[in-house]
Amino acid sequence: MGRWEPNASGRLARAALELYLERGFEQVTVAEIAKRAGLTERTFFRHYADKREVLFAGSGQLQELLVGAADAAPGSAAPIDVVAAALLAVSAEFQERHEFARQRQAVIAANAELQERELSKLAALSAALTQALRRRGVAEPGASLAAETGVAVFKVAFERWISADDEQEFAHYIRESLGELRVVAAGA
Amino acid sequence: MGRWEPNASGRLARAALELYLERGFEQVTVAEIAKRAGLTERTFFRHYADKREVLFAGSGQLQELLVGAADAAPGSAAPIDVVAAALLAVSAEFQERHEFARQRQAVIAANAELQERELSKLAALSAALTQALRRRGVAEPGASLAAETGVAVFKVAFERWISADDEQEFAHYIRESLGELRVVAAGA
Repeated sequence: MGRWEPNASGRLARAALELYLERGFEQVTVAEIAKRAGLTERTFFRHYADKREVLFAGSGQLQELLVGAADAAPGSAAPIDVVAAALLAVSAEFQERHEFARQRQAVIAANAELQERELSKLAALSAALTQALRRRGVAEPGASLAAETGVAVFKVAFERWISADDEQEFAHYIRESLGELRVVAAGA
Repeated sequence: MGRWEPNASGRLARAALELYLERGFEQVTVAEIAKRAGLTERTFFRHYADKREVLFAGSGQLQELLVGAADAAPGSAAPIDVVAAALLAVSAEFQERHEFARQRQAVIAANAELQERELSKLAALSAALTQALRRRGVAEPGASLAAETGVAVFKVAFERWISADDEQEFAHYIRESLGELRVVAAGA
């Protein structure tokens, strides 16, 4: 076993993002990431399976947080309020990682394969949220539609949050998108 | 140039789907598809770039149809009504290909790479619809949210249509999902 490095995974993630932004995701090797972080390749592989996983390592945790918040909502809550509670719980987690989120998004936007991977992760979030709503007794198509709509709200809010110049919190954009959803749907 | 084969692309698509369902997408070769269709490999490649394109060849046309219907909606239409008109136009096109759509979905559901590709196509539809709404003067985040919500409605309706035992048209499920969207959003 190598020696323990304080916050190695964070240092590796920052080094990886820097390099991906500088030179493009495809061009960067694990050896270069480790070197930039002042760590060994062996330490890299103790934290991440490959260079792609640096970008997606948090998604399991994100899903747990989302589903946990949905499960914790009051039994009387309407499906969209369950979804809102779940999105707001997630937004709090993102809030501390604004710069990381912004850089990560720029890397993903520049690479078709990473975009497909990201869409796949979002689809998994939607499926997990659908299951959480069904467990609460929400019937179909309501459960699927509330979950898919929730992911739509999340995507739009996220895009606005990372491209905004102001200092508004992610939660602000989640609430804005939820408000806009009401306006959009009521127009029908 | 080979000789012209009547409806070669349709015969190839049917043969490909049969084989993908029988043996799994990965296992099937273009040579086998051509043989099953009673055509040559050369004819296959005159119609499709590769075996994956058999499943996604219609997506450009679908996007044109969607955007065309959005552009053709009355200037006074609310964003969600523009989206509804676009989805209903698309649903009419799907209606004649129920069995193809059902089989195609089963093939895609069994293969992670095809699923990512499908999600990517849906994201492209959403982006095209967002642009169509912006051209009509719909501001952000309304345009993105209406488009993303429209794709959510489409996904849920599609899933229900292809898994339903009844003889309801796809348009029925689009209307059902749009109605459910109003209920979901109003609960907020």
